[in-house]
Amino acid sequence: MAQGIGICGQTIRCFTGNALSELIGQSNLRKSTPADYRKLREIVCTLERFGTLGNDIQLTSNEIEANHVIMCLKTKEYNKGIQDPSQFVPGHQIMRRLKKMKESPLFLLLSKMPKGGVLKAHAHSMCSTDFLIKLTYAKNLWVCTTDNGCKFRQFRFSKVKPTRIQYEEGEWQLMEQLRDYHGEANLRKYLKNALNMYPSIRTTSSIAAWNQLERIFDLLDGLLRYPPVWAEYFYNALKEFHADGVQYVEVRSKLQRFYCLDGSKLPVQETVKIYQEQIGRFQTDNPDFIDAKIIYSPLRHATIDQMAKYVKMCTILNKEFPDLVIGFDLVGQEDRGDPLSQFASELHKLPDNINLYLHAGQTNWYGTRIDENLIDAVLLGAKRIGHGYAITKHPLVMELVKQLNIAIEVCPICNQMLQLSADYRNHPAATLIANNIPFVISSGNPSFWRTSPLSHDFYVVFLGIAPMNADLKFLKRISKNSLKYSGLPDEQKSMAMSKWKIKWEKWVDYVIKNKDKIMAQNAEK
Amino acid sequence: MAQGIGICGQTIRCFTGNALSELIGQSNLRKSTPADYRKLREIVCTLERFGTLGNDIQLTSNEIEANHVIMCLKTKEYNKGIQDPSQFVPGHQIMRRLKKMKESPLFLLLSKMPKGGVLKAHAHSMCSTDFLIKLTYAKNLWVCTTDNGCKFRQFRFSKVKPTRIQYEEGEWQLMEQLRDYHGEANLRKYLKNALNMYPSIRTTSSIAAWNQLERIFDLLDGLLRYPPVWAEYFYNALKEFHADGVQYVEVRSKLQRFYCLDGSKLPVQETVKIYQEQIGRFQTDNPDFIDAKIIYSPLRHATIDQMAKYVKMCTILNKEFPDLVIGFDLVGQEDRGDPLSQFASELHKLPDNINLYLHAGQTNWYGTRIDENLIDAVLLGAKRIGHGYAITKHPLVMELVKQLNIAIEVCPICNQMLQLSADYRNHPAATLIANNIPFVISSGNPSFWRTSPLSHDFYVVFLGIAPMNADLKFLKRISKNSLKYSGLPDEQKSMAMSKWKIKWEKWVDYVIKNKDKIMAQNAEK
Repeated sequence: MAQGIGICGQTIRCFTGNALSELIGQSNLRKSTPADYRKLREIVCTLERFGTLGNDIQLTSNEIEANHVIMCLKTKEYNKGIQDPSQFVPGHQIMRRLKKMKESPLFLLLSKMPKGGVLKAHAHSMCSTDFLIKLTYAKNLWVCTTDNGCKFRQFRFSKVKPTRIQYEEGEWQLMEQLRDYHGEANLRKYLKNALNMYPSIRTTSSIAAWNQLERIFDLLDGLLRYPPVWAEYFYNALKEFHADGVQYVEVRSKLQRFYCLDGSKLPVQETVKIYQEQIGRFQTDNPDFIDAKIIYSPLRHATIDQMAKYVKMCTILNKEFPDLVIGFDLVGQEDRGDPLSQFASELHKLPDNINLYLHAGQTNWYGTRIDENLIDAVLLGAKRIGHGYAITKHPLVMELVKQLNIAIEVCPICNQMLQLSADYRNHPAATLIANNIPFVISSGNPSFWRTSPLSHDFYVVFLGIAPMNADLKFLKRISKNSLKYSGLPDEQKSMAMSKWKIKWEKWVDYVIKNKDKIMAQNAEK
Repeated sequence: MAQGIGICGQTIRCFTGNALSELIGQSNLRKSTPADYRKLREIVCTLERFGTLGNDIQLTSNEIEANHVIMCLKTKEYNKGIQDPSQFVPGHQIMRRLKKMKESPLFLLLSKMPKGGVLKAHAHSMCSTDFLIKLTYAKNLWVCTTDNGCKFRQFRFSKVKPTRIQYEEGEWQLMEQLRDYHGEANLRKYLKNALNMYPSIRTTSSIAAWNQLERIFDLLDGLLRYPPVWAEYFYNALKEFHADGVQYVEVRSKLQRFYCLDGSKLPVQETVKIYQEQIGRFQTDNPDFIDAKIIYSPLRHATIDQMAKYVKMCTILNKEFPDLVIGFDLVGQEDRGDPLSQFASELHKLPDNINLYLHAGQTNWYGTRIDENLIDAVLLGAKRIGHGYAITKHPLVMELVKQLNIAIEVCPICNQMLQLSADYRNHPAATLIANNIPFVISSGNPSFWRTSPLSHDFYVVFLGIAPMNADLKFLKRISKNSLKYSGLPDEQKSMAMSKWKIKWEKWVDYVIKNKDKIMAQNAEK
């Protein structure tokens, strides 16, 4: 073995990456024998495998059987992709592949899978476009149009025609009259595009994408800030999420004041109460649903005085609704706002029991003040970080996040839609997986991407971002993470985990029982 | 300070990332005071800065002055990009931005900068398209066309019409007759596209891009494997590289046998001799040019027997030309070939003095056998790794690469052209910079991307991949790396460094002397 390396096969499991690196650093690998090379290779591959997210999970014998089915579907789709990358869904703009995805046996299986919770969902972008269109049939709904009635800008419920016009050449019209005028089919078609990002499918600039996103939020504002509609919307959101295998939701909400038909405004507490009522109602109707919480999330584009008011408001609401308003965050395009450090002194005033779940690192402008938000999110004591897209450019932050057990909320489709990333195979979450950094998968604004509440994001992560051999262990770890890193009080987490486990085991049984059918469908593809 | 963290300002420099991470891990950051937060922030930012590639460099007072100019240009272009990402060149497909880049004062300055060496250049894709077109005027040149003379497939020098036809409906015609027939302008226009990747500017599949790349190599083969033309081509390649601020080149070459006008083949030694003669000639003509070396690089799509022959051939050539044929590599699309591990036993037979400079990790198929090539490249003892694009998915490999001082040959434009990456701001080299992993910038096949030998790659790395504040220290480190990690014998490295330093200092002086002019041009942009 001369100047090679002496390693006995059984010692593999005792190695850590550091020890190995030091050992190898001393040696001249060009002088090692083929046998040394093979042993070292085995060690490195083993260390890699055990260091990857999900490998702490032990599968039951049932899960092993189900895993075999899942991996058959995954491997087939993966290998087809290697043969012809143009056919690999996670290599492309997802809105162009929605139809193809619906035909994927793997996607169908993941859709049925109990995925735990969604920890990052923005209040006004949770429901499907179809449901939003239904809401526009409500009575007393006016719409402000521009471009001779061709562009919808704002909705508003009112007994009489609203007078305030925010858009040049804007004109208020009753929705039902407009429907008669344009024809129902045409109007539905128009809304089908206007209420999501589909029109900006070709956009290549993050600013253009954000502008489109904000136009949709503006349009929806008057529709959703009307109490009876919001109650219906939020209940339906929980229904859609639940149907997609989600049992727990944390909603980022600006908690704005709602308005009445006469134009008067309600106190913000009334807003929170509607959430509370609908969550209660949904839990009664669906005993397997765990819970929903609110993370108070005003816009980051604020002055320090405004921030002080937000912090105060959050403190008040948390006192009044301690089990519901549990956290604080700032939303809106990070690149356009002030850095978190600007607001540090205000954020320090937030009581300890209100968790910080801060958006940070949703940028690819490396080394800017905004990029540094990742450092601030950690040092301000965030429990989770929203997106954290830039984290691989900050090794020290990665180390801290791991040590402090801060979970990253990975929202891959959102990143693509807002022009941070293109091909999912290059998404930085792969590096999180490789480094075993805790993370959860979320969807952010699924309503705007025409995707399901969570399944599409799970699919692109599992097939496109995770390693080829990531299997049911990975899916189980990621699902469990969504409860582990949730804002549920510790004492409620075991209850939550039990509710998830019941559904999980049912799903595993379903996979086993339908094995032959699933495999036959897969063979046809 | 209660449960906060006690850190005295002066201790910042004593911290390592690990120590900090452990210290912070013990504390509750939500309980730290605003003063603690600010101190910690300073420490983390300082550690980040000092941990980033290039921060070991001390600038001279002249360099500090030049740096001010460079950073003015960079900051202006960067900030414009933040304002309007559609204007930010490194956010886009580079072939669509070549014109815009030519107008960038930063690009112009980098073009003039002495950049050291190019350590990864493929022999047949070094010269500009314009020069290639010139070569097609040589006497006795035949071209095999298909599609009724509309597609050029193969070139061949011959006294008489070649008889071997490899393409269906292929037809050999004399180039000069074809030129008369189509008209010179039309033919130039045709070749202007056929000899580079421009026609596949819209390609979105790696396989389609590689197919196009290989079609160009096939077309060029008969043109360049003819000794007098190759001599002219290679001399001109050195000239173009030298004019772009490159003083040293390592060429990946298959070292195929050349052919004569009568169709006979020369021994491979004759091929090497032409390199040797032209390098000598170029050094005589340009005393500031350091040297050029060959890395013998057959195709990776080979059987084990073929590989054994390649290893033998490399050993023979290295014995005959010890100062010229210094290394071994395998080329061709990694995703399509066998993994390196397949050839390990053959590669082990290569004498130690022949360095391994292995392509590895030029893939985004995470977790495949090909993706594992990164592990093999390290364990086989590679001195440098070509591309290493997938390395951020292999933290243990990153650690080993750093400890073993293996440099990654980053070829950003090549990665984009071959459909690995899109937006340069997401290129994994940013993570290499953040982790201070040694790397060099190379161009690979600049001829095929219509880019300069190295300046375009430097520009996208400096502006698009490196952090906003990366400055002349970074550029100097990267330039020096290209000699430090070269295959030059240690005793020649100081000579090489001196030759580079002379040009570097001249360039710094040039920047200072032309400061006002450069700044005025920048103000106009």
